Amino acid sequence: MQDDVNARHAEKMRRIKAARERMMATKTERKGLIMVHTGNGKGKSSSGFGMIMRCIAHGMPCAVVQFIKGNWQTGEKTFLRERFPDECRFFVSGEGFTWDTQDRERDIAAAETGWRIAQEQILDPEIRFVLLDEINIALRYDYLDAGEVAEFLLSRKPEMTHVCLTGRNAKPEILEVANLVTEMSLVKHPFKDLGVVAQEGVEF
Amino acid sequence: MQDDVNARHAEKMRRIKAARERMMATKTERKGLIMVHTGNGKGKSSSGFGMIMRCIAHGMPCAVVQFIKGNWQTGEKTFLRERFPDECRFFVSGEGFTWDTQDRERDIAAAETGWRIAQEQILDPEIRFVLLDEINIALRYDYLDAGEVAEFLLSRKPEMTHVCLTGRNAKPEILEVANLVTEMSLVKHPFKDLGVVAQEGVEF
Repeated sequence: MQDDVNARHAEKMRRIKAARERMMATKTERKGLIMVHTGNGKGKSSSGFGMIMRCIAHGMPCAVVQFIKGNWQTGEKTFLRERFPDECRFFVSGEGFTWDTQDRERDIAAAETGWRIAQEQILDPEIRFVLLDEINIALRYDYLDAGEVAEFLLSRKPEMTHVCLTGRNAKPEILEVANLVTEMSLVKHPFKDLGVVAQEGVEF
Repeated sequence: MQDDVNARHAEKMRRIKAARERMMATKTERKGLIMVHTGNGKGKSSSGFGMIMRCIAHGMPCAVVQFIKGNWQTGEKTFLRERFPDECRFFVSGEGFTWDTQDRERDIAAAETGWRIAQEQILDPEIRFVLLDEINIALRYDYLDAGEVAEFLLSRKPEMTHVCLTGRNAKPEILEVANLVTEMSLVKHPFKDLGVVAQEGVEF
């Protein structure tokens, strides 16, 4: 009886493996991807930083441009600036969430500075991966022109360079040029359901 | 005209800021969270590793137990084992994706070993964050009993310890006891739509 279960399992796994190998044989292309992490759930920035960890591990020079969390003391900023200043360039543009500044012109200027830096990093042939953290927020408030950003990514990004754009409410122009879009959705969240504060390690 | 736009923007941001401060004032509790990253999209494991980066930055001892990707040479494994052996304990259980082994009994034994290690790490008062990477796959194939895992997390996990469980097809028992569930959904994926192979930095 147990032998039957195991035999059926082995047969099923053999079929899955064969199908997967047929599928993988068609996947031979290597190219730099335009990735978007959006949605109202967690994990948009943190998975970007997980990929930064992978890049450092593989010796792929990378860069982060943070658009909105400027003056936050986040773990990822401390970690990358102090421990991996050569492996990962870390730029900050913007001075905290927009509702902290209440000054639209200053926010626009900060976003524009961030985007200038982002373009330089993307065009730099040394850099293999660029994380544009929270750029979708700057695009959503029209601090930057989504069409211009999309056009740049499509026509100017070096072929093998990966770019990851994070933040909720990704603009249609950005989704259109992306190769890979992931929507992170909130199913349960302690900020909403419970009285739990943002905690180090988890949220920042 | 432009002044009007800016004044309306400042007023709107002022209201958002006030509402946010009222909301945040009710969030005073600190507690260890049970987090689940599931869904068919990217970012489930990588956002777990982004949180590991945050823990290391904040000096919070942490542990990873990888259930399925056992013999894969992933960037995160190399990175954490070589560079942060003291800050993050890294355990591997399992020998690659299940369709590689085709041996259900061996998979079950590997999953059980992983779960024993996971329990020790969760109960260890030194450890503040435990990432159970791809455990949902082991639960989905009933290599582990979801009710038993859920019960342990609910009744035995130290109050301030965070645990993050990743993998698609999270079981209802696990979702039930989680504080925070994020569903990562595929919107566009180059494996599916294009002939792009899994690439270092991005996928592993």
